[in-house]
Amino acid sequence: MELYIDRNELSRGLARVQGVVERRSTSPVLSHVLLAAGEDGLRVTATDTEVAFIGDLSANVEKKGELAVDANNLFQIIRSLTEPTVHMTLGAGQRLEIKSGQSFFRLPGVSAEEYPAIPAFNAQGVATMNTSVIRRLVEQSNFAVATDDSRYGLNGAHVEEVNDEDGRRLRMVATDGHRLSASEGTYEGDLAITPRMLIPRKALNVMRKLLDGHDEGVEMAFGEGTIRLKRPGQTFWFRLLDGEFPDYQAVMPTECKHKVLINCAVLGNALKRVGILIQERNRSVRFSFSDGTLEISANNADRGEVKEVVPVELEGESIEMGFNVRYLQDILSVLPGNTVQLELSHTLGPCLIRDPSSTLAFFVVMPMRLD
Amino acid sequence: MELYIDRNELSRGLARVQGVVERRSTSPVLSHVLLAAGEDGLRVTATDTEVAFIGDLSANVEKKGELAVDANNLFQIIRSLTEPTVHMTLGAGQRLEIKSGQSFFRLPGVSAEEYPAIPAFNAQGVATMNTSVIRRLVEQSNFAVATDDSRYGLNGAHVEEVNDEDGRRLRMVATDGHRLSASEGTYEGDLAITPRMLIPRKALNVMRKLLDGHDEGVEMAFGEGTIRLKRPGQTFWFRLLDGEFPDYQAVMPTECKHKVLINCAVLGNALKRVGILIQERNRSVRFSFSDGTLEISANNADRGEVKEVVPVELEGESIEMGFNVRYLQDILSVLPGNTVQLELSHTLGPCLIRDPSSTLAFFVVMPMRLD
Repeated sequence: MELYIDRNELSRGLARVQGVVERRSTSPVLSHVLLAAGEDGLRVTATDTEVAFIGDLSANVEKKGELAVDANNLFQIIRSLTEPTVHMTLGAGQRLEIKSGQSFFRLPGVSAEEYPAIPAFNAQGVATMNTSVIRRLVEQSNFAVATDDSRYGLNGAHVEEVNDEDGRRLRMVATDGHRLSASEGTYEGDLAITPRMLIPRKALNVMRKLLDGHDEGVEMAFGEGTIRLKRPGQTFWFRLLDGEFPDYQAVMPTECKHKVLINCAVLGNALKRVGILIQERNRSVRFSFSDGTLEISANNADRGEVKEVVPVELEGESIEMGFNVRYLQDILSVLPGNTVQLELSHTLGPCLIRDPSSTLAFFVVMPMRLD
Repeated sequence: MELYIDRNELSRGLARVQGVVERRSTSPVLSHVLLAAGEDGLRVTATDTEVAFIGDLSANVEKKGELAVDANNLFQIIRSLTEPTVHMTLGAGQRLEIKSGQSFFRLPGVSAEEYPAIPAFNAQGVATMNTSVIRRLVEQSNFAVATDDSRYGLNGAHVEEVNDEDGRRLRMVATDGHRLSASEGTYEGDLAITPRMLIPRKALNVMRKLLDGHDEGVEMAFGEGTIRLKRPGQTFWFRLLDGEFPDYQAVMPTECKHKVLINCAVLGNALKRVGILIQERNRSVRFSFSDGTLEISANNADRGEVKEVVPVELEGESIEMGFNVRYLQDILSVLPGNTVQLELSHTLGPCLIRDPSSTLAFFVVMPMRLD
C-alpha cells in the first residue's frame, strides 16, 4: 500500500469513524479503522459489528493494499499535521508509515484478514430520504429511547409506514414508558418495513453525527434485520434490534378537555429556572393551568421553593397536574415552532404535546402524581 | 433585608465567588455566600477559611440585613433570570425571597452569625501592581507548583523581592522538583516580604479568575501569613503556606555550552504530534540537537514510533537529551514571544528556557535519562 492524500480529506473521513469504533471493547481490533487503498482511492471502514461506516476518500494510490490501525491515534495524528499532503505506506511488519512535511510516524497495524467483515447486504426495499429529514426524525426520537431497559423492545426507535390522505411517510416512534415521541418524514421509493424493526440507540447517535453537511438525498435500504444508508462516498450500515415495540396507539390520548397554547421561549426559560432546585430526576413539579396563566411551582425542603407564572391561552377548565420538568424540556428542545400546544384530558391522563402549526411530530408525556 | 439590584451586577458578583466556595466541604456553610445589605449596597462574601473574596455591588437597599445562602443555587437562579431587576427580601425563618418578573424563589438560609468571619488584617506593607502583571505572574508560575507533594514547601509559589540595576521587582518562583518557573513584575510601594511566604495553588487559581476585565492597579498588602488584594469593589484575601521553599538558585544552570533558538509555533506543533503517542506522563522523549535541525523522536512498542524534524539555530556542538514533552509544552504555552531559547550544559544538566527578547521570566527543566 502506498498513497498520497489530502490531510483535510483524510481528517474528515477519520472524524466520521470515531463514533463507530469501540475503544473499550474486549476485542482490541474494534478500536481500529481499516484502510484499503484501491483503484478508486482510499476506503476507510469502521465497525463494532453492530454498526459500520464505510467512507470512500479521494487519494492518489500508487500501490494497492490494506491495513487496520488504531482509529483514534491515526485521527489525532492526521488532524494535528500542518502540511497539506499525507504520504502513507504499508511498511515491514504490518506497520503504517506516515510522512507529511517534517513529520514521520510508524504505527503498529493489524492485517485486514483479522478485521471483522461487514456482512453481505440483501436490499429488500430501497427508498430515498433527505438528510435534513432523517436528522430531524433522529433528533425528535432519540431522547425518548430507553437506556438499557429490561423491556428489550424499548431500547430502540420503532419505524413504520403511514399511508393516509397526506401521502406516504416513514414514522419513527420511541418511548421509555414515561414519554413518547413520534416523528414523520416523506420519502421516495419503497421501504419494505416489517414488524419488529427497532433502531438501536447507538445507531441513532452515529446517524445524527454522520448526516452532517448540506441537505441531500440519502438512499435508505432495508435488509434482513439491517438498514443501510448511502450517499456519495459514505455508507452507513447497522443491525436492527429484534424486539417487540409496545402498542403505542393504546396510550395515545383519546380526548382533549383542556387545550393550552404557550410561547416556547417563555416556557423554556421558566422550566430552566424551576429545574435549578429540582435535582432528582423523577421529581414531580406542580403545573396549575388556569384562565390566562400557568403557575409552575415546586418545593424542596433542602433547596427551597420556586414559583413561575407563564402566560397561556387555555381552552377548557382549570386543571392541576404534575410533570417531570426534564421531559418537557426535552420536547421543547426539538419543537420547530415558537408555540407549543398541550392537550390534556384529566389529572393523571397522558398529555399530548405538539407544534400547533405542524403535523410532522407529536409527543406524549405521562403526568406524575402530586404529593 | 430588602433590596433591588440589577440582575447582571449581581450575576457578575456571584460568578466571582464560585471558585472560592467549597462545595464538598464537611462544613456545609462553606458552600454558602454571605449577602449583607448595607448603606453602600450589597456586599457578597465567600470563603473556605483559606481564601476569601468580598465583592461590593451597587444595589438599592430599602432595609439592611444579612443572610448566607447556597452560592451555586443562587448563582444559577440569578443568571437564568430574564428580567433586568431582582428584588431580594429576608423572609420568615431565615429564608431569602427573590422576585424578578414572574419568577419567585424562596431559598433556605443560614444566619450571618454562623458564617465564618474573615480574620482582621494587619497590613505590614502596601504595594500597587497592575492586574495584567499579576495575571502574567500567576499564569507563568501556576503549572510548576507541585500538587499535594509530601515536600510541603513545593505546594505553593514562593515570592521574593529582586532589586538590581533594573529596579525593584516582585519575583514569583514555583517548582515541583522537575521543572521551575520564575516570573517578575514591577510594582509601586512597599512589599514587606518575609521568608517562608508561599502562595497556595487554590489562591493562584482564584486570583487568575478574579483579575479579569480591563487592566488597572491593584493594591497588594502583606499581613502576617496573609495577602490581601484590593481593587474598586473587590477584595481578595488568602492565607500563605508557611513552608520552606528550596534554595532554587542552587539548581540554576551555571554554564551554557549549547544555545538553541527555535520558532515557538513550529516546536509547539511538533510536540503536540509527538505527545499523541506518549500517554505516560513521565516518558522521556529523545531530543537530538545538531547544526540547523532538532530531531525529536520517541518509540512505543504498543502505540508506534514518531520522528519530527524542526529547524533550529544552534550555537555549540551537537547534543542529545531526553525531555518530558509536557513540561516543554507547559512553558511554550506561557512564553510571550515567537522564539524560544534553550541553554544547555550537558546531557543530564538543567536546561534554561526563556524568551530571548524578554528578561521578565525564565524556566528550568531537568532532562530525563534516555533509555
